[in-house]
Amino acid sequence: MQWEIDQIDPIIIDDPEDPRVAAYRDIRERDLTGRQGLFIAEGEVVVRGLASAASRCRPLSLLLAEKRVAVLTDVIQALPSATPVYVARQPVLDRIAGFELHRGILALGEKPAPPSLAELLADVGPQDVFVVASGIGNHDNMGGLFRNAAAFGAKAVLLDATCCDPFYRKAIRVSVGAVLRTPFAIAEAEVIVDALQQAGVEVLALTPSATERLSDYRRSGPVALVLGSEGPGLPRKLIDRCRPIGIAMAGGFDSLNVAATSAVALHHLTTTALARG
Amino acid sequence: MQWEIDQIDPIIIDDPEDPRVAAYRDIRERDLTGRQGLFIAEGEVVVRGLASAASRCRPLSLLLAEKRVAVLTDVIQALPSATPVYVARQPVLDRIAGFELHRGILALGEKPAPPSLAELLADVGPQDVFVVASGIGNHDNMGGLFRNAAAFGAKAVLLDATCCDPFYRKAIRVSVGAVLRTPFAIAEAEVIVDALQQAGVEVLALTPSATERLSDYRRSGPVALVLGSEGPGLPRKLIDRCRPIGIAMAGGFDSLNVAATSAVALHHLTTTALARG
Repeated sequence: MQWEIDQIDPIIIDDPEDPRVAAYRDIRERDLTGRQGLFIAEGEVVVRGLASAASRCRPLSLLLAEKRVAVLTDVIQALPSATPVYVARQPVLDRIAGFELHRGILALGEKPAPPSLAELLADVGPQDVFVVASGIGNHDNMGGLFRNAAAFGAKAVLLDATCCDPFYRKAIRVSVGAVLRTPFAIAEAEVIVDALQQAGVEVLALTPSATERLSDYRRSGPVALVLGSEGPGLPRKLIDRCRPIGIAMAGGFDSLNVAATSAVALHHLTTTALARG
Repeated sequence: MQWEIDQIDPIIIDDPEDPRVAAYRDIRERDLTGRQGLFIAEGEVVVRGLASAASRCRPLSLLLAEKRVAVLTDVIQALPSATPVYVARQPVLDRIAGFELHRGILALGEKPAPPSLAELLADVGPQDVFVVASGIGNHDNMGGLFRNAAAFGAKAVLLDATCCDPFYRKAIRVSVGAVLRTPFAIAEAEVIVDALQQAGVEVLALTPSATERLSDYRRSGPVALVLGSEGPGLPRKLIDRCRPIGIAMAGGFDSLNVAATSAVALHHLTTTALARG
């Protein structure tokens, strides 16, 4: 293998069992078991995000299909020089990953130290919006929540302990890398709501049981949206701590997909003017 | 096998090769090849929708895991008596379907005769909203579009010929059955836009290239949203026939997922009052 590119010194991997790429082995199964402080990023857009200045995470190494090196030249050149860039032919890569990795681009990343709730809520301004998720176990939905939170400029995402890990490979991919740069903390749902309220944030619980409609709501300062999973919805006792808000539905539906709900609510909250307090 | 339920006369299937369940064989692969006028519905909610009065489709047969018969008793009793209900033990069902079918509930349905554009646009009222999709090839996104169209009461969905089939099993599932009851037609995108405009419908093209923002837009009558796929977006010549509208984004994003986009736009259009024309 040969690249006509300066300053790229890839490490060729010929043996799928090579211990240097052990972190990339059978990633589909390992996603399900979690990994301490590490995660796998996949695909060009996400790996670019991981290596970018906006990233809260550190790239520890890259593993690329031979044919995908050229497209990432600028990323590789900007990496700290000690960062290994492993390159393998497609069949070797597929055997390492444990499935056909058509994208041909992987990176091993280090999760950031999680900020505390207090840190995330230290400096709340009147325009700030927060997204709180309770019981979101589906990686697509988690990724969608982070994508929408980032796209509408939410200040942070707050997850309860029953949510899945946003650093799962698929959640990162669906988030288009937003997981890698959006600050988030994990705590009990009640603790999150209390901390937000103590910081002067109005906390809305999105629930079909609400009588107040989102479209009639005007915020008067910082606001948080609490979103639950579609089936069970939010626990009653959590809703009771918040201002319940619903989205009007037709056709016998009582709810949207949770990521779609977040987009609808964030759009409304970020485009309607603050009411006079 | 035995059920203590009157009027259920299930046909027991012991042999995965039984020709009576040929339509259910290897459904994952067959999804990709299409099927003439027929489709597979999966899961309790979707199969209930297929058999409901709101359905535009006809259930031709059911194939159930033994343990799932009881939950559908009311549905089975309401089916026309000539509708076969096949029942198999889980391992037999898995071999028929070609994968582990944990949900244990399948139905074979017949697609409705597709209405023409003219029929769908024959009686347009001032509050009507239409969803137009161009180039949506992802089944999750197609299902999400239909779910959101139904949940916000859109009158019809109009697809161009480059969209995937909404009757794919996964699209139906993601739509929570909305595909089975929402009227839709398929035509060239330009033909759809022309027909809408001739029917007095204002046609909005959702595109990051727009200068006008969705949140500033007030409809003055019937309106249609044209949505494209995330990567390439809508063709320029299609945008030029429409009123381009964009959603303001933060964080370096220029677009949301297309299903999320539809939810945001439909919520805005269905909750803001008509402007005086």
